[in-house]
Amino acid sequence: MCVTLCSGDPTMYERYWLQMGDKTTVVINGWQFISYFSDVRKVCWFLEPEFANAIIRLHKLVGNAITEERYIVVGTGSTQLFQALLYAVSPPNSSKPISVVSAAPFYSSYPLITDFLESGLHKWAGDAYTFSKDEPYIELVTSPNNPDGFPRQAVVNRSQGILIHDFAYYWPQYIPISSPADHDIMLFTVSKSTGHAGTRIGWALVKDREIAKKMTEFIMLSTIGVSKDSQIRAAKILQVVSDSHQYKSNFKEGQAFFEHSYNNMARRWKQLRDAVNMSKLFSLPDFPSSSCTFSGRTFGSLPAFAWLKCEGEIDDCESFLRGHKILTRGGKHFGSSGKYVRISMLPRDETFDQFTERLSSIKSS
Amino acid sequence: MCVTLCSGDPTMYERYWLQMGDKTTVVINGWQFISYFSDVRKVCWFLEPEFANAIIRLHKLVGNAITEERYIVVGTGSTQLFQALLYAVSPPNSSKPISVVSAAPFYSSYPLITDFLESGLHKWAGDAYTFSKDEPYIELVTSPNNPDGFPRQAVVNRSQGILIHDFAYYWPQYIPISSPADHDIMLFTVSKSTGHAGTRIGWALVKDREIAKKMTEFIMLSTIGVSKDSQIRAAKILQVVSDSHQYKSNFKEGQAFFEHSYNNMARRWKQLRDAVNMSKLFSLPDFPSSSCTFSGRTFGSLPAFAWLKCEGEIDDCESFLRGHKILTRGGKHFGSSGKYVRISMLPRDETFDQFTERLSSIKSS
Repeated sequence: MCVTLCSGDPTMYERYWLQMGDKTTVVINGWQFISYFSDVRKVCWFLEPEFANAIIRLHKLVGNAITEERYIVVGTGSTQLFQALLYAVSPPNSSKPISVVSAAPFYSSYPLITDFLESGLHKWAGDAYTFSKDEPYIELVTSPNNPDGFPRQAVVNRSQGILIHDFAYYWPQYIPISSPADHDIMLFTVSKSTGHAGTRIGWALVKDREIAKKMTEFIMLSTIGVSKDSQIRAAKILQVVSDSHQYKSNFKEGQAFFEHSYNNMARRWKQLRDAVNMSKLFSLPDFPSSSCTFSGRTFGSLPAFAWLKCEGEIDDCESFLRGHKILTRGGKHFGSSGKYVRISMLPRDETFDQFTERLSSIKSS
Repeated sequence: MCVTLCSGDPTMYERYWLQMGDKTTVVINGWQFISYFSDVRKVCWFLEPEFANAIIRLHKLVGNAITEERYIVVGTGSTQLFQALLYAVSPPNSSKPISVVSAAPFYSSYPLITDFLESGLHKWAGDAYTFSKDEPYIELVTSPNNPDGFPRQAVVNRSQGILIHDFAYYWPQYIPISSPADHDIMLFTVSKSTGHAGTRIGWALVKDREIAKKMTEFIMLSTIGVSKDSQIRAAKILQVVSDSHQYKSNFKEGQAFFEHSYNNMARRWKQLRDAVNMSKLFSLPDFPSSSCTFSGRTFGSLPAFAWLKCEGEIDDCESFLRGHKILTRGGKHFGSSGKYVRISMLPRDETFDQFTERLSSIKSS
């Protein structure tokens, strides 16, 4: 049996939510959420107010993003919001599509999503480091980055640039929170913050009203809004996450969400680094320690993905690991070298244990 | 205060689901549906098996569509499935986009959805009746039709044509069911069958495996699957609809879903026709009666939208009605004349009563 670590399926979080018991159970009645509309007075008319409030409360608690003077746009995962943004910021009636770039290694889906409909509005233009055209562009800044886990800033830094900050992983189980992010366009998602990938809910914090309006238009045309059931469920989950830190007495010892998740990530990264040291065939990035404004703890990043390098003469790390029944995603998908693979750090315990055990036993052939 | 009847928001159904009490309540625990995946052995790997079973059972009961030898693809409403289909059936690497047509009057969103991303894959080509190019095309066949309620068949009938049958309204509260639909590509949605627009769930029945696979790919790239919460809720709702007919003893008199909804539609259409007769300024389509294989009843269509015509010298029916504080969508949006408007027949009772009262009192000025 292969150990599958290609996708970032966050099943690691199941155990925590099982422990929460009924605290995060939602009950939805048949007569609720019949209508397409949530609040017609809002720019994003399909955003449930309860979910908006839960988002604001959580960002305030964690201190990872400014929500003041921002429009919140909800999406069917941050994947839909990313496309809504491309639509919203691409110049209309332009003679050619705007270039979309991101520094390599970049999230492997960015090029596919940007180009799969052969849109006349936008076109993938590759690695931001090599972008040299003197014309408008969109730069995707993922921080901490998927796949390699490093914090990032824009690299093109030219006028006519539009920045989209993808903060899917800017949460205190993965990286020390340095300050509340304060950019024009910021993306978040529940799949990576709380683990609820199956609910398909993300949110954007957007300064400009016209951009928020055009994003809403995109979501109207592409899915006529976003599941109300999932919004209500996500609201409940985010509320419990906040409660677990603000009303600790209602929870058992060690059940504060980001404490618990940080401990999981720290244990897994130690386990992986031990396995890598045992094998001697691989290497991992090193992350400098810094202080987290949320936890007060000083630590080095514990990314949701490991960006593993095959040392020595192995040029196709993905195939090499497949030969040892470990399924990963190769570096080339991320605009990088085949010597690297991306490995999900968020599977269930059994899978993760099996993976590190297998990895540690791989010796040079 | 204006009476808003522009969108097809199906709030009429709220009252029925209120009467069902706890029968359609869903309870979702925090640890459920964490994963992106529902069933990795299936082509549509994010389709919840429970929802698939509920769909098959309901189609069998109603007799409105063949489900055998079909792949089921779930979507974030049938709007997403429509786009997934355009992607799946457009020829790849073609020198120019494939033409997309539908007989006027057609659903006003078809042209917008087809063209808003300026895709190189497909392009709106207007009224199917005037399509004369001798080349591949996609024809959208909505039956019964939105906006005018008539049953439809393909009109272009040339080789190289791909047909997409949109059966959002092919349910026994709107039209007599004549036989189980048996086309290659068929679309359905809960918004119009049971009224749950806020859950954003639709499904496609697709004969060809490759088309189902490419649709799945589209949904993976556009939203990485479909809300599990909404799928589970939709499953429950469809099960209760089936139960209300198959286990009548568990329900009160007159609570069988399609009975109840048919009665509502019949009453509303009578009320609207009475109002139109009072005013003498308008006219409505006449529908021939036929026998419904599901209910055994013989009746003329009771569409979810009324396609109202301003008779006499009024050329802009939408503006005329707006002057009387009735908000509708004008015929031009549907590729037709401004003498027509589309009016939702599915608002709450108070809104519908207010509308017919206002309409009946409009006399020639």
